[in-house]
Amino acid sequence: MLLELAKKRKTVRIFSDKKPDIEDIKYAINVAKEAPSGMNAQPWHFKIVDAQKEKEKIREIVEKEERKFYESSKGKLKEFLKNANITWKKEFLTQAPYLLFVYSDKSAPFSKESTWLAIGYLLLALEEIGLSTVTYTPPNLNDFSFGNYKLEVILPIGYGNDPKEKYHRKNIDEIISFNDIF
Amino acid sequence: MLLELAKKRKTVRIFSDKKPDIEDIKYAINVAKEAPSGMNAQPWHFKIVDAQKEKEKIREIVEKEERKFYESSKGKLKEFLKNANITWKKEFLTQAPYLLFVYSDKSAPFSKESTWLAIGYLLLALEEIGLSTVTYTPPNLNDFSFGNYKLEVILPIGYGNDPKEKYHRKNIDEIISFNDIF
Repeated sequence: MLLELAKKRKTVRIFSDKKPDIEDIKYAINVAKEAPSGMNAQPWHFKIVDAQKEKEKIREIVEKEERKFYESSKGKLKEFLKNANITWKKEFLTQAPYLLFVYSDKSAPFSKESTWLAIGYLLLALEEIGLSTVTYTPPNLNDFSFGNYKLEVILPIGYGNDPKEKYHRKNIDEIISFNDIF
Repeated sequence: MLLELAKKRKTVRIFSDKKPDIEDIKYAINVAKEAPSGMNAQPWHFKIVDAQKEKEKIREIVEKEERKFYESSKGKLKEFLKNANITWKKEFLTQAPYLLFVYSDKSAPFSKESTWLAIGYLLLALEEIGLSTVTYTPPNLNDFSFGNYKLEVILPIGYGNDPKEKYHRKNIDEIISFNDIF
């Protein structure tokens, strides 16, 4: 039942050392690529990173920008980050066995919408096979773009080892209404 | 297995008269609201429409803009629409038993990304319970926005009765690459 899977799925920022099989990552991408897309352009590209040196370089580039971002954060955001115990240090970028970079082709219609819809498919597929991730968007997305492809998210993937509980969700009655378009 | 569900799921623009139970629509929303979101803002709102008069008014407003849009479409888009046999007439807006309007709260961080990720969850949940939809984005999204909430998509929902086959998906090897960030 999909509801159980969706409820069980939580964001994970701490991973175990155990490396999942590459076929598991491909399974999740195979699910994601079945998503619909504007004009069926399938405007996504997935870069799989498992080389430690490459992960280290990515982390270095990202943390430099994260540090600036955190030092300038204010108000609600600053409070959220503090309460959630989130800092500019992104250890998961080197700790997770895989980093999955997900790109959208800006020349395709509704490329951002289609790609994030596919990311929804992907997260559920990871959960199904026991893998965890966090939808991590670095402040310097553009540093990783290429050609028409814009980086949308970095998904660190592995077996979760994060004690943090899933955040509370609103009750359905708070987010629905009926026949009130006009 | 989620891959089977994802593969089976196709876009549907023709619906049968049979009206699904409202609990089925709520089930899909219950799945969607488990999705992660920026700062856990859960920046989505869902308006469920099943009143025929309201659907008719929606269709009228939308088709007026669609007609202009189609008459001005060119090149690749025009060709796609013609080949796909898609016109400015949006019969599904009055034929589908339900229209689900999905909004994102623009004051929340990553509201578009989070909402479309949740729409991915929602589409799979509909498929699981035998319901179909099309991610329909009218040209005049802003006409339906309210306050900070921007309309992202209209999902006509019902039992599918559309003979059109699912579009072909690219092979996974065309959309993945390895350790090539730099």
